[in-house]
Amino acid sequence: MRLPDTSILATRHRHVRATLAALGLDALVVTSPTNIRYLANHVGTAGTLVLTEQDIHLLVDFRYREAVRATQASPSACADLRVWPVAASYDEALVELLGRPGMPATVGIEAHHLTVARQEWLMRTCADRGLQVVLRSTERVVERARIVKGAAEVAALREAAARLSTVAEAAFAVVRAGVTEFEVAGDIEAALRRAGFERPAFETIVASGPNSALPHHRAGRRVLVPGDLVLLDFGGVLDGYCSDLTRTVSVGAPTPEALKLHLAVQAAQMAAVEAVKPGVAAGAVDAAARRVLESHGLGEAFGHGTGHGLGLEVHEEPRIGPPRADAPSVQLEVGMVFTIEPGAYLPGIGGVRIEDDVLVTDQGSEVLTSVPRDLLALRNG
Amino acid sequence: MRLPDTSILATRHRHVRATLAALGLDALVVTSPTNIRYLANHVGTAGTLVLTEQDIHLLVDFRYREAVRATQASPSACADLRVWPVAASYDEALVELLGRPGMPATVGIEAHHLTVARQEWLMRTCADRGLQVVLRSTERVVERARIVKGAAEVAALREAAARLSTVAEAAFAVVRAGVTEFEVAGDIEAALRRAGFERPAFETIVASGPNSALPHHRAGRRVLVPGDLVLLDFGGVLDGYCSDLTRTVSVGAPTPEALKLHLAVQAAQMAAVEAVKPGVAAGAVDAAARRVLESHGLGEAFGHGTGHGLGLEVHEEPRIGPPRADAPSVQLEVGMVFTIEPGAYLPGIGGVRIEDDVLVTDQGSEVLTSVPRDLLALRNG
Repeated sequence: MRLPDTSILATRHRHVRATLAALGLDALVVTSPTNIRYLANHVGTAGTLVLTEQDIHLLVDFRYREAVRATQASPSACADLRVWPVAASYDEALVELLGRPGMPATVGIEAHHLTVARQEWLMRTCADRGLQVVLRSTERVVERARIVKGAAEVAALREAAARLSTVAEAAFAVVRAGVTEFEVAGDIEAALRRAGFERPAFETIVASGPNSALPHHRAGRRVLVPGDLVLLDFGGVLDGYCSDLTRTVSVGAPTPEALKLHLAVQAAQMAAVEAVKPGVAAGAVDAAARRVLESHGLGEAFGHGTGHGLGLEVHEEPRIGPPRADAPSVQLEVGMVFTIEPGAYLPGIGGVRIEDDVLVTDQGSEVLTSVPRDLLALRNG
Repeated sequence: MRLPDTSILATRHRHVRATLAALGLDALVVTSPTNIRYLANHVGTAGTLVLTEQDIHLLVDFRYREAVRATQASPSACADLRVWPVAASYDEALVELLGRPGMPATVGIEAHHLTVARQEWLMRTCADRGLQVVLRSTERVVERARIVKGAAEVAALREAAARLSTVAEAAFAVVRAGVTEFEVAGDIEAALRRAGFERPAFETIVASGPNSALPHHRAGRRVLVPGDLVLLDFGGVLDGYCSDLTRTVSVGAPTPEALKLHLAVQAAQMAAVEAVKPGVAAGAVDAAARRVLESHGLGEAFGHGTGHGLGLEVHEEPRIGPPRADAPSVQLEVGMVFTIEPGAYLPGIGGVRIEDDVLVTDQGSEVLTSVPRDLLALRNG
């Protein structure tokens, strides 16, 4: 797996330390595995990282010791990394670390990742042992650093999106009357592997006929029949970075209603892509798609947001949706990468969603995925 | 997808309500998607459920409305279900629900699932709006109900494990010198689909040669060579229930060290399976495996627990490991299902893990997976 080199990690550490200083915090306890990877190149499902002004403390259990040693002996080593073995539990090891001489007193936790149970245990145990440490909630400190991608990250996302476009061709080749949704999903995932992806970025969605009107149907035993709309939503992970694409095709000739629905969503999707440029609010991109669908009487049929950020996670910031009281709209910046994926779902007719991956550039935008957006009428069987 | 029928759900509700009454709680806010599925047959990645003495309130957004309607019109309907649409955010909708007349005042939250950020927002918003509701942390209320499987659940787990055994045969057929770990993983996942699984239960692990000594290596670009130990760990989900199997094979003839390592792990795994019966502590099953590995001088090489519960999640209770201060050992009961998977990992030689899925019966145990445990020497290419 390609991992960013030491200097890239150091830039990230500086960014996060500046945020912590502004918040009046001496350290941050990082418990999100993705954030730990972003800061220290530790790729695992478990781990706890404590970033202080001087050091990066990484707590890892037995399973990851060899892997950490290998990374630290490579150009992707994390500078100033101090590795602490975890014997009993991660939180026990964390309290021991926080109790060591010289460790900081005012420590942020990731309130969006830490559970109430873990926080309660940490606070109780620190108090029981007479530690003077104060744990303070923070929100999305590392996520905000991750929102603008560096050059290597953009390259990884561009490559992932390009390969995903070839997977789309393979997907279109298998959709036909007589196969089940499961079979199509299996063939898409096999094509993802052949294209070099480490794994699917999420569970592949194949929603056919009436299922296409269920926006979060995954894939089931239903057999495709002529006239079905088939919504295909899939993605792959390459060197840790996610890609995500949706196309909706028809098995044989589409009905006039399906064609109309598809044209409306296609227009909405293109309007949203057109709206992307630096300085624009994410909510304005969402509004561009929504306006088009409303003009076709499909406002009610579009119940989700227009898109989501892509990176080490398949759903990350920025959220491309209507501004909310608790989540104001992000202003787009060069280097942000996200999906544009409006949809419309009409029980009785079916659903259509069209999704591309888009990079904000100083010119406006670059669509990273490249697959025709038109409704494709595929063979019947 | 097969879902449990109305009467099974009602039994689960009675069980959870009895626990809540014992805790002095009027209601439980359920935020774990798996627990929501267990209680209401709502299969989705989002949702919030509030179980009161009389009702099951389900908050769902636009995406799931059609699916809930379909389930409620089937024999799997959840009795006393009241569905509330979510417009802005789940937590906003939850506060609105808790503020409705007649809603209970002392409400449990799932402290192991709710994040600190969500809890803080809920408490602040309830206070701002003058609600008299008290949110109290609970731990694993629904998880404890899930630990003993009902007859339909056992049938689903038995069927999943049986099908997984056929996938093992397919896996053995593709392991050979010259293929990459990724290719083997891809073929295993294709075999999972062919066997009827909805999806892999987790990311398939193919760890070859030196990678087999990294207990949480997944799969990479390494090409298999003669003499490799290859650790294959994979599972599938069938009707929502998980299966999980590990075998370690050798490409061509194994080295004497590898054979010795494999025999020790095999003896440990069989000793642990033998130890399973009702009334025994989970820690005693772990100790049985550990004793055998220690007798071979491999105590240090076995750094993880012996197993984990299987059900709607691939890692659930009971934990089959050494008793811990914060997590005392569960006493085994008829109807519990878990993995038995000791391993030993020696940098320079390789790693071995052997894993089966086991049901506790009144006779002792039933091994649900059925694949030979011996080290298999596979063709070179």
